[in-house]
Amino acid sequence: MKFSKKTVLFYLLFCLFFLSCDTNQSQNSNAGNNEPTHPNLITTVKGINLIKENLGKYPLIDNAIKDMKGLVGEELTKEKDFPISKDPSGGYSHEKHKSNYLMMYRAAMLYQVLGEKKYGTYVKEMLLGYADLFPKLGLHPYGKSYSPGKLFWQGLNDAAYLVHVIQAYDCVYYELSKEERQAVETKLLKPLADFLSIGSPKMFNRIHNHGIWLNAAVGMTGYVLEDKELIKRALYGATIDTTLAIYQNVDYNDSSLKGFDPKRPAGYFMQLDNLFSPAGYFTEGPYYQRYSLWPFVLFGQTIQNNDPSIKIFEYRDSILKKAVYTAFQLTNTNGDFFPFNDALKGMSFKSPELVLALDVIYQNYGEDPALIDIAAKQNTVVFSEGGFKVAKHVAENKAKPFTWKSVNLGDGADGKQGGVGILRQGPSSDQLCQIMRYTSHGLAHGHYDKLTQLLYDKGNEILQDYGAVRWVAVIQKNGGRYLPENTTWGKQTISHNTLVVDEKSHFNGDIDESSKHHSDLYFYDATKADYQIMSAVEKNAYPGIKMHRTFVMITDTLLVRPFVLDIFNVTSKTKHQLDLPFHYLGEIMDMSFEYEVMDAAWRPLGKANGYQHLWLTGKGKTKEPQAKFTWLNDGRFYTITTLSNENTELILARLGANDPDYNLRPDPAFIIRQKDAKNHTFVSIVEPHGSKNLNTEIVTNPYGDVKKLSIVHQDKDYIAVEILVEKEKILVVLSLNEHDEKQSHSLTIDGKLRQWEGPYRQWFYK
Amino acid sequence: MKFSKKTVLFYLLFCLFFLSCDTNQSQNSNAGNNEPTHPNLITTVKGINLIKENLGKYPLIDNAIKDMKGLVGEELTKEKDFPISKDPSGGYSHEKHKSNYLMMYRAAMLYQVLGEKKYGTYVKEMLLGYADLFPKLGLHPYGKSYSPGKLFWQGLNDAAYLVHVIQAYDCVYYELSKEERQAVETKLLKPLADFLSIGSPKMFNRIHNHGIWLNAAVGMTGYVLEDKELIKRALYGATIDTTLAIYQNVDYNDSSLKGFDPKRPAGYFMQLDNLFSPAGYFTEGPYYQRYSLWPFVLFGQTIQNNDPSIKIFEYRDSILKKAVYTAFQLTNTNGDFFPFNDALKGMSFKSPELVLALDVIYQNYGEDPALIDIAAKQNTVVFSEGGFKVAKHVAENKAKPFTWKSVNLGDGADGKQGGVGILRQGPSSDQLCQIMRYTSHGLAHGHYDKLTQLLYDKGNEILQDYGAVRWVAVIQKNGGRYLPENTTWGKQTISHNTLVVDEKSHFNGDIDESSKHHSDLYFYDATKADYQIMSAVEKNAYPGIKMHRTFVMITDTLLVRPFVLDIFNVTSKTKHQLDLPFHYLGEIMDMSFEYEVMDAAWRPLGKANGYQHLWLTGKGKTKEPQAKFTWLNDGRFYTITTLSNENTELILARLGANDPDYNLRPDPAFIIRQKDAKNHTFVSIVEPHGSKNLNTEIVTNPYGDVKKLSIVHQDKDYIAVEILVEKEKILVVLSLNEHDEKQSHSLTIDGKLRQWEGPYRQWFYK
Repeated sequence: MKFSKKTVLFYLLFCLFFLSCDTNQSQNSNAGNNEPTHPNLITTVKGINLIKENLGKYPLIDNAIKDMKGLVGEELTKEKDFPISKDPSGGYSHEKHKSNYLMMYRAAMLYQVLGEKKYGTYVKEMLLGYADLFPKLGLHPYGKSYSPGKLFWQGLNDAAYLVHVIQAYDCVYYELSKEERQAVETKLLKPLADFLSIGSPKMFNRIHNHGIWLNAAVGMTGYVLEDKELIKRALYGATIDTTLAIYQNVDYNDSSLKGFDPKRPAGYFMQLDNLFSPAGYFTEGPYYQRYSLWPFVLFGQTIQNNDPSIKIFEYRDSILKKAVYTAFQLTNTNGDFFPFNDALKGMSFKSPELVLALDVIYQNYGEDPALIDIAAKQNTVVFSEGGFKVAKHVAENKAKPFTWKSVNLGDGADGKQGGVGILRQGPSSDQLCQIMRYTSHGLAHGHYDKLTQLLYDKGNEILQDYGAVRWVAVIQKNGGRYLPENTTWGKQTISHNTLVVDEKSHFNGDIDESSKHHSDLYFYDATKADYQIMSAVEKNAYPGIKMHRTFVMITDTLLVRPFVLDIFNVTSKTKHQLDLPFHYLGEIMDMSFEYEVMDAAWRPLGKANGYQHLWLTGKGKTKEPQAKFTWLNDGRFYTITTLSNENTELILARLGANDPDYNLRPDPAFIIRQKDAKNHTFVSIVEPHGSKNLNTEIVTNPYGDVKKLSIVHQDKDYIAVEILVEKEKILVVLSLNEHDEKQSHSLTIDGKLRQWEGPYRQWFYK
Repeated sequence: MKFSKKTVLFYLLFCLFFLSCDTNQSQNSNAGNNEPTHPNLITTVKGINLIKENLGKYPLIDNAIKDMKGLVGEELTKEKDFPISKDPSGGYSHEKHKSNYLMMYRAAMLYQVLGEKKYGTYVKEMLLGYADLFPKLGLHPYGKSYSPGKLFWQGLNDAAYLVHVIQAYDCVYYELSKEERQAVETKLLKPLADFLSIGSPKMFNRIHNHGIWLNAAVGMTGYVLEDKELIKRALYGATIDTTLAIYQNVDYNDSSLKGFDPKRPAGYFMQLDNLFSPAGYFTEGPYYQRYSLWPFVLFGQTIQNNDPSIKIFEYRDSILKKAVYTAFQLTNTNGDFFPFNDALKGMSFKSPELVLALDVIYQNYGEDPALIDIAAKQNTVVFSEGGFKVAKHVAENKAKPFTWKSVNLGDGADGKQGGVGILRQGPSSDQLCQIMRYTSHGLAHGHYDKLTQLLYDKGNEILQDYGAVRWVAVIQKNGGRYLPENTTWGKQTISHNTLVVDEKSHFNGDIDESSKHHSDLYFYDATKADYQIMSAVEKNAYPGIKMHRTFVMITDTLLVRPFVLDIFNVTSKTKHQLDLPFHYLGEIMDMSFEYEVMDAAWRPLGKANGYQHLWLTGKGKTKEPQAKFTWLNDGRFYTITTLSNENTELILARLGANDPDYNLRPDPAFIIRQKDAKNHTFVSIVEPHGSKNLNTEIVTNPYGDVKKLSIVHQDKDYIAVEILVEKEKILVVLSLNEHDEKQSHSLTIDGKLRQWEGPYRQWFYK
């Protein structure tokens, strides 16, 4: 990463400005009058007063209180325990400290909104218990990561602890005597904030999802303790003392630290500058975008409440707003995040992070009624001014429908490191949604695959990305950590809907190599009435092979629904085995080709790179120039129509081989295998059609309307495809090497001269 | 089946009464005034007027009209076709005639409620087209069943045609000229009604789900045509002319016709007497109960509208009401029918049959507000007086919550041929529901298995019954008919949650043998606060083996949720291999025992009786006296704790072997295999516990609270089980040979004398 003079100058000016703003601090002091100034992070005196005056009026607030109470349960009456930290994730001391900080946070919130002393007393006693424990802790014995913690094995967990505990302390501030505050601040909060900043320099100053957690924890502590030094570190990075033992002892060869530069600018502003693209896309993908939004938004609101003159919500052209809206666009119409890269399925915009983010964005960016639509589905709020407004406006039916849009999101801080394209057609209640991932690697949680597709229809996964192999927080499953099959299956390219050459993953599964590259956008256009298109090129995944994939979502007025044309052009000078998997979800209804099934035994499809996890269940061939594969998903049929020839093998597979701990789902795959291929173009259509109703037992259109698919012209510059739909033909032409929208083209196809402008054109005719 | 003198006398009196009721017929005539008397089956002039006067007011009516319009679509403008019948189910002529009668019915309904002439004209032209076609048809060339049709291969389909078409005719009656009516009545309706009654004697007079369709079709035709002879046949059976060719030619060896007696009483009343148990249970099971309700209820309302003096809704102590309420009780809390026997999953109380049934029952049995709760979920109504009331009362929020109850339903006309026990605990939003099937065979759609369990929790299938292997109405799947795997897997006992001895199905899969027997209730009690119990015995499934299974749903105040104790006592003088499968649904989280997985290849678990369809994926053993198996389903954990010893093998399997057309779902199974067993008792607990939230990523109680399970006493008369739950013990004693509730027992267990009354007792202690 490089830093221009302009950037450095900007930071310098910001620092000077900040240091001159002494007056800001007075906002957080209790001197001079008896108005309480705590809490004042995201939960504020004003917000709490609004909530307390309106209890019982707005269901979302009442739900939030009920949920909080349910989570606290019997905890207040149980014996408190502050074990010496010694276990990794899943072990007793880890889980106990985690439970403790969550309980402190929840009890503190209930103390504020309900005003019941028992909650305050509980939090006070917990704080004092930790003030007693913390000085006894050294580095965690399992602290093997590049940034070990004290309470937990990772500094990241210690930061999450502090983010919660500083809020708890802020909420019960006046329940503690001066001496008690002194003890908690000097024995727990300040030392922990120091440890997480100057004591964890590699992580604290790192431009990374982990770094922002530490920045936020330290900054929020700074505001509560009125400690300008902590605030400065949080905003601009910590001065690194490279002589500290912690700096010396930690494993420097951790691959995730490559390129770490102790001298570069750091802190919250730097994270805002670098972790998001200009449109607000986070490079690790939606699942971790959600996770990183938590400290980003939390600290943003904290700054706004304490240093409004910074105008943090305007920073980088309102990047915080963009990051949250982009997160919402990275969900399916049921709110589930697209699960590419390491991602657990089912994580959605109902997550606590997005509840917080929505409430903050709603408060600070003009109260968009589309957010109220989402908030109603979240069904809860945080205890802030924003949360109060959201709950009130949900109750007052101020919602307007949130719209999921077609969008192309560039990756990287400059938005030019590849990206994610999304095409959508139809209302949210019944939408076809095609995604192509052509991003950069995505840091430690990235997967190798390029030009991958995901397909959703009416809220269902039709072609799935497997996501991560992990049961987070389930102790029995390796303490809730990533499982070995995440490496051997989840990250491998065969587990994704993209090309696999010679049974090897993209970049041969080498993260260093993969991190150097990204795919390139060729063309994106979602403005046309009868088609939307996205096209991208990948030249580095396999040496000597160029991959160029184009998705066109075509709307034909003769058809009830749109369908997706997928042209995957592979250029190579040498022969390879090309596998194009379709990880469909549903039940096989029909195959147009001859196939044999493996009856006597199932054996793994291959030996390595994920193939060892797939059982080969059947395989087929056809003499026809096209093959059809139809399945049923949630009462709708889907058919893949794909070109075939004598070198095409159609493979049916199911996941679950070499899975000694039953960690994999038994999901199916349909793989188009092209043998001995140099230059080859996969042309496929995925068509949703018909219906099967379980209650009326009525079936409609089980075969689909795409009758014939063929390449009618192909040379090094163009490919033309003809699709017979019902009684109509669609001719599609794609220019392979010229993507200028203004460029004129002419080509004789089937004896007829065709002329057009731009990289793509389609004609309907009888 | 035998007939008492009393029954015959009753019918005789009924017939005399009926023949004397000439006046009833005048209700259906148009003579003497200009008030229209058509339609008057279930859709009536009065009902239609109510609906027409209130269009746009009640959403359920508007939904129904919208649905109808959607289903009619462009049909009115398409060319009509009346092909000569020649194809079986799935073929063109079959599907066309089916589509035709549905369209006629829908258009006729739209004609009534909207009054638009185009619908009436369409129906008229269709009727005339069929009046032209029908005389040309002989018996269907594929008519291989014991009751062939003319329009379709099965008379059953012809009956469904007539049920729809007679309603359509009734609705457009005044659109036809006298001559047109003459043509339709004499060339189509009357000949078809004759064919389905005196021309299909075996089916028409059969006490069977198929028979009632023919009875209803003929009876409804009788009422519209004012043909007393048809009505009499429908109510009391047809006089059989055994000299007819049709009687001679049809295969008499059809096993389903065994016991058919041409001389016995028949018709609608006889169906009402015999097809339901006194409590309204239909022997084929819930899926077919739903199907049979359609003609039952339709004809019931028809009789009520035309012959109210019969008081049909009071017949047999209001058997129609009981049959519908029992159907509702045979659903999961999401409305899905329990899928035992041949049954397609997803069929629910939202089916058209139950919409019709609900509307009729609501109208005729005192407007139960609990039905309005279900109607709101159905979200549609039929166009009848009842349907109008239901729609109105849904809109007026008159619903009270429908309650799913614990209930024991006897099977057979006398309710004493075994039965189905259901235990439920908790509100509908989060209910644990245990089912044991110990019925008779259930006719042609019955499965062999006895003492099978199904388990539901919070609306999800936890231990499933596979149901039928069939994609009804999907042409590609064998024309939508039952698939071969329905015989080789769906009906086999290993596909159910009950004991399999020596890898053979109950009754060795012989329907004749199975049809002779039923299991016997041992004890049922759902009245106690801290437990509900059901217990049944099966002595005939395997020669020389007695099976006695008891389920106790135990509510322990220390636990968040109830759990189920399953004591399965097997008595045998010779050694056998005993398999007890648990067809769990979800993902494996943990196993307490050592196991090996099949990595190099998966091979079928066995060779026949369904075992050939299961892949053996792993197997385990343990030296501990108990084994635990934990899985995750929809965010909740479930643990089976089962007793084990050195002869216990724990088998992990997955469905999908020998499945050449990919007809089977890849569902998993956990099988407890006891080798070389004579007398053996399987003791298991299935415990729902904890939670995993995908959005908060919080996991609670992943291990469960059942710590230890053991048999503390066993002899030929008693078994005593001790369960350690958290810090509490539960002692359970079951008397095996004495089920009198008043009987006193005393037994010394663990040195302590225990005394109690009745077959079951439990004690909680520390």
